[in-house]
Amino acid sequence: MTDTSPQDRTEARLHSLSNALESGAFLPVRRMLNTLHAAEVAHLLESMPPKERHVLWGLLREERHGDILQYLGEEVRAAFLREMDPQALAAATEGLDVDDIVDILQDLPGAVIHEVLQSMDEQDRQRVAKALSYDEDTAGGLMNTDTLTVRADVTLDVVLRYLRLRGEIPEMTDNLIVVDRQDNYLGVLPLSDLLTRDPDLSVGEVMNTEVKPMPAELTASEVAARFERMDLVSSPVVDASGRLIGRITVDDVVDVIRDEAEHSLLGMAGLGEDEDTFAPILPSARRRAVWLGINLLTAFAAAWVIGLFEKTIAQVVALAVLMPIVASMGGIAGSQTLTLAIRAMALGQLVESNVRWLVFKELAVVALNSLVWAAVVAAVAVWWFGDPRLGWLIAAAIVINLVIAALSGVLLPLAMRRMGIDPALAGSVVLTTVTDVVGFFAFLGLATLFLL
Amino acid sequence: MTDTSPQDRTEARLHSLSNALESGAFLPVRRMLNTLHAAEVAHLLESMPPKERHVLWGLLREERHGDILQYLGEEVRAAFLREMDPQALAAATEGLDVDDIVDILQDLPGAVIHEVLQSMDEQDRQRVAKALSYDEDTAGGLMNTDTLTVRADVTLDVVLRYLRLRGEIPEMTDNLIVVDRQDNYLGVLPLSDLLTRDPDLSVGEVMNTEVKPMPAELTASEVAARFERMDLVSSPVVDASGRLIGRITVDDVVDVIRDEAEHSLLGMAGLGEDEDTFAPILPSARRRAVWLGINLLTAFAAAWVIGLFEKTIAQVVALAVLMPIVASMGGIAGSQTLTLAIRAMALGQLVESNVRWLVFKELAVVALNSLVWAAVVAAVAVWWFGDPRLGWLIAAAIVINLVIAALSGVLLPLAMRRMGIDPALAGSVVLTTVTDVVGFFAFLGLATLFLL
Repeated sequence: MTDTSPQDRTEARLHSLSNALESGAFLPVRRMLNTLHAAEVAHLLESMPPKERHVLWGLLREERHGDILQYLGEEVRAAFLREMDPQALAAATEGLDVDDIVDILQDLPGAVIHEVLQSMDEQDRQRVAKALSYDEDTAGGLMNTDTLTVRADVTLDVVLRYLRLRGEIPEMTDNLIVVDRQDNYLGVLPLSDLLTRDPDLSVGEVMNTEVKPMPAELTASEVAARFERMDLVSSPVVDASGRLIGRITVDDVVDVIRDEAEHSLLGMAGLGEDEDTFAPILPSARRRAVWLGINLLTAFAAAWVIGLFEKTIAQVVALAVLMPIVASMGGIAGSQTLTLAIRAMALGQLVESNVRWLVFKELAVVALNSLVWAAVVAAVAVWWFGDPRLGWLIAAAIVINLVIAALSGVLLPLAMRRMGIDPALAGSVVLTTVTDVVGFFAFLGLATLFLL
Repeated sequence: MTDTSPQDRTEARLHSLSNALESGAFLPVRRMLNTLHAAEVAHLLESMPPKERHVLWGLLREERHGDILQYLGEEVRAAFLREMDPQALAAATEGLDVDDIVDILQDLPGAVIHEVLQSMDEQDRQRVAKALSYDEDTAGGLMNTDTLTVRADVTLDVVLRYLRLRGEIPEMTDNLIVVDRQDNYLGVLPLSDLLTRDPDLSVGEVMNTEVKPMPAELTASEVAARFERMDLVSSPVVDASGRLIGRITVDDVVDVIRDEAEHSLLGMAGLGEDEDTFAPILPSARRRAVWLGINLLTAFAAAWVIGLFEKTIAQVVALAVLMPIVASMGGIAGSQTLTLAIRAMALGQLVESNVRWLVFKELAVVALNSLVWAAVVAAVAVWWFGDPRLGWLIAAAIVINLVIAALSGVLLPLAMRRMGIDPALAGSVVLTTVTDVVGFFAFLGLATLFLL
């Protein structure tokens, strides 16, 4: 079995695609696209510059649009959605699962959603409208309405015959859901039990009542945590009164996990978690400009601190040479602690009772490290400028800055969370401001006191 | 249904745990632990400082150790494993799935693995030994050997009776796997088809042959990509000759996805993806020291560049005040591009044919932004120091540094990948070195040319 790497395969596909598009050979492109899974087409679209994307989109059969839309990242998808009229959208979403339709519609303005809903058939309209009423980032927003339910009082044999009559089972169904006449959730009947237990037993005797359903308001990240902890394939979702309203399947949870993890990574660079790598220039520039502007304030704060000590620097220029070292060491040590704290918060590991221990640990770690590296920097400074006082000064400034960095690395994200600010987004800017300001102030301030 | 947030729940549990541990009230702790799922116990252990962790570990019933071990992060797990003797380990892993046993054993030295294998029964020993022969980060390393296979020539009815006789089906089984007499993979028989299709049909008539098995050497990240793209619950794994050797289930894939995403986040701060938030102080300090040391080289490089212009700074101290702004803007813009490029590479979006477009886009984005912000910084500089030449100088230096930052942000990670260096780990250090050196050199160099 020869299996080329995914990298090579995407590479080859993109290469032949852009060649074909350039030369106008649309027929082979169409043929190639037809052989690919919707998820793979979405991946190719995301790997292309905007112009080629639109040509490719036009070459796809319209009935595939909906299927492909659901696999696209939010930003890329929004670009295509803006160009489709409501009728085309309703047609494209036909045949999709309710959760995927909701996923697509959520990005649209209210008026368009209304129009799309109008062009749907009654049953779909009701289901989609209901699902749309839940926040995107909750169990209700993630759920699908394709539940397969049974009553507790029938025998397994009846269920088996019902399924054979029905002729199909929704994808990712590992359990049938047991409800009473009022649709109240009672338990689940695993397909594996259906296949292995005595057919004369009743559903009520076999069903698993230990599987707790998820309330519709549960946050997406807690849904993901439960799936991970319990190794679930699907989970029933109930409303506030315990009535079954849908189910969540693991494929949607995988997306949540991916998004969550990317949120921390991209957020620290001021990028959105749905940032499109090949986004058009102007929107990208606008978003990044904001981030650069915010960070510029940090830089000005640092410059202002340095400005306070202009006279000192004029007398001892070596200070200007060495001062970025103090700030940079603080920034690095602080961002290590910050990253660890943000990850621990995302995983739900950081709670009040262990914050004190974490602060103590980070301080101890940084204390050890600052001693080692402060000594190294001091030795280099003395060797470079031949002034032992410079060595003592820079060592002291580094120790001070690293201790402050470690403290801020743990306490800043906690304080931000309490204020409702996302630490993954704002943490690194504020931390850098702290380590720059403290670093320059400590070093130049000590120098002014002891050197002049 | 009242559902406290997971945060509050962990908080409450940790609080009552540490209170109980302090007061020596072990009985209620034991009782509480017994009611929790192994994954939840693992989560509590990971949220505790090392000392409390060990007390808690000792309070757990020994037969639960194996179950809990599999849910722990590598670093925390390794700490517990080091203290267990091979017999205890073999006992703890009894009853676990092969892939989970392998997962645990992989962290141990060869001699210990050998001893543990010796204390297993023959069938388990063979399975585990086979699975251990594959790299941890491949399909072979992820797979489990609990496959349920059927022949193509029997009828569904026979399969149904066989399952009922067998009495149980492995967890996360959505498909039976169809093989020939030599165990060669032929296709899969979804449980849903088994339940809905005519029992008189043969397996060969019903089976799905479009599901491609995964080769054992496939990398874990490609396994995850296929699961995500195809919305799989499980997938057969075959060896080089097409023989079925196991299957991978989505719960293990979720772990891969989580680890991958965390790798980029933690890697950029020089932390390992299994970094234990509450790791003991000394090992933490040692690991971080290395990262600080590497970054110190960056800081020294920047200092050396500044040192080249000592005379210039001595004449115009304003340069020392403004120079961190140039370096910092470059660092921020560069890290945005770098983060985007690293994410695109991890998702397999970045290939040769679109690199040129990405470079062009990033340059265009940064060109627009550098014009805006260079103007702002120049205006502030002129207002601050009253010298219009300073404004022109700093604007030019910022434009130069931002352009270099954008170029490096795309090209550095690509070059690193080609050299076999992990850009998520080394990218940000090298990039900061570039933006610091170029920033200081451009600003101070231009100042030396035009100001003196």
